[in-house]
Amino acid sequence: MRIGILGGTGKEGAGLALRWAEAGHEIIIGSRDAERARAKAEELGAQVKVKLSGTSNRDAAARAEVVVLTLPAHGLAATLGDLKDACRGKVVISTVVPLTFGGGRLFTPPPHGSSAEEIQELLGAEARVVAAFHHIAAHELASADHPIDCDLLHCGGDAPAKTLVTELGRAMGLRAVDTGALTNAGPLEGITAVLATINRRYKLKGSGIKITGLPAGG
Amino acid sequence: MRIGILGGTGKEGAGLALRWAEAGHEIIIGSRDAERARAKAEELGAQVKVKLSGTSNRDAAARAEVVVLTLPAHGLAATLGDLKDACRGKVVISTVVPLTFGGGRLFTPPPHGSSAEEIQELLGAEARVVAAFHHIAAHELASADHPIDCDLLHCGGDAPAKTLVTELGRAMGLRAVDTGALTNAGPLEGITAVLATINRRYKLKGSGIKITGLPAGG
Repeated sequence: MRIGILGGTGKEGAGLALRWAEAGHEIIIGSRDAERARAKAEELGAQVKVKLSGTSNRDAAARAEVVVLTLPAHGLAATLGDLKDACRGKVVISTVVPLTFGGGRLFTPPPHGSSAEEIQELLGAEARVVAAFHHIAAHELASADHPIDCDLLHCGGDAPAKTLVTELGRAMGLRAVDTGALTNAGPLEGITAVLATINRRYKLKGSGIKITGLPAGG
Repeated sequence: MRIGILGGTGKEGAGLALRWAEAGHEIIIGSRDAERARAKAEELGAQVKVKLSGTSNRDAAARAEVVVLTLPAHGLAATLGDLKDACRGKVVISTVVPLTFGGGRLFTPPPHGSSAEEIQELLGAEARVVAAFHHIAAHELASADHPIDCDLLHCGGDAPAKTLVTELGRAMGLRAVDTGALTNAGPLEGITAVLATINRRYKLKGSGIKITGLPAGG
């Protein structure tokens, strides 16, 4: 699978890139600054001994089969405004979390209810948006020496797109849990505010969550 | 501890009442309809062989040392509007979740960001509001034959009040996790939308969540 990771020079995007490159996927790192994307792709490639490429966000979206957004929540309109054509018909995975650090309130979703729903509106109905991977800590993605102790919660309106997300999670050992329609993306994104608070309060690098009560192997 | 459970005739309130009565606390079930509260108190008392009492919501709040709100999110102003005096200086535990069933969107928080913050505004700054117990399924509370496999996530601005909540959780075998200020109540309440969706989708009665990455015994 050819995966374009927009905003892939950040910690979360780079961590996902590493795991998927190791699993044999072709990775294109995207960034506003194509030169930075190329440098990050080279750095990550050296770590996993696989060639990754780097380019502009727009070019990464255009070339990818699956588009992953690891962008900041603020300024999505500026980045995605002209990517509607590039994303048409493609699975678009939003890991975006609308957090505002240093203010009184950490979780600050847009009027749409979630960043994922804002992205759906910006990219139009033909983008197959799935919200996922918000809770998999960058620190855990970067540490390949132990399994990641966190479930992959996803939601969205396109069942085959969610199956693909489930497979991309399985590639890094994650159990996927289907949490319904994209209208549940706000609650999923909010969990990251809870985990970020727990990390700070308990001095952790990568707390996560597990759903209990599911049948084994489910 | 004398605990008043407002809206305690519902499943969640009744489940908490059972567990705390078993742990030796004095329970006052509150309801809009005092007669229904008395009937529910009698029914629960017969189950645990301890005497519980039932009365109006207002009287339950006035007599309690700790006030627990297991009320519907819609209509809080009508119920709590005249309980400011009764709750002054008391720990008020909000389990309220702003869910709307049957619409397009399950999680429908008020403009305050969460039901807990709406409650804080309605009761005034002297009520010591803690948001907690949203994720402990009523079905699990009612089944005393196995441990509840779910963490107790709480948030609020009053540290001693959170310590008391932690102790009330420990009484039913729960591990408490401090998730910061009351501004994180929206994300906590949202998790219930995720769990309710999982319950429906996977045909479960009581999914729950556990935080991973915390030190053992922490």
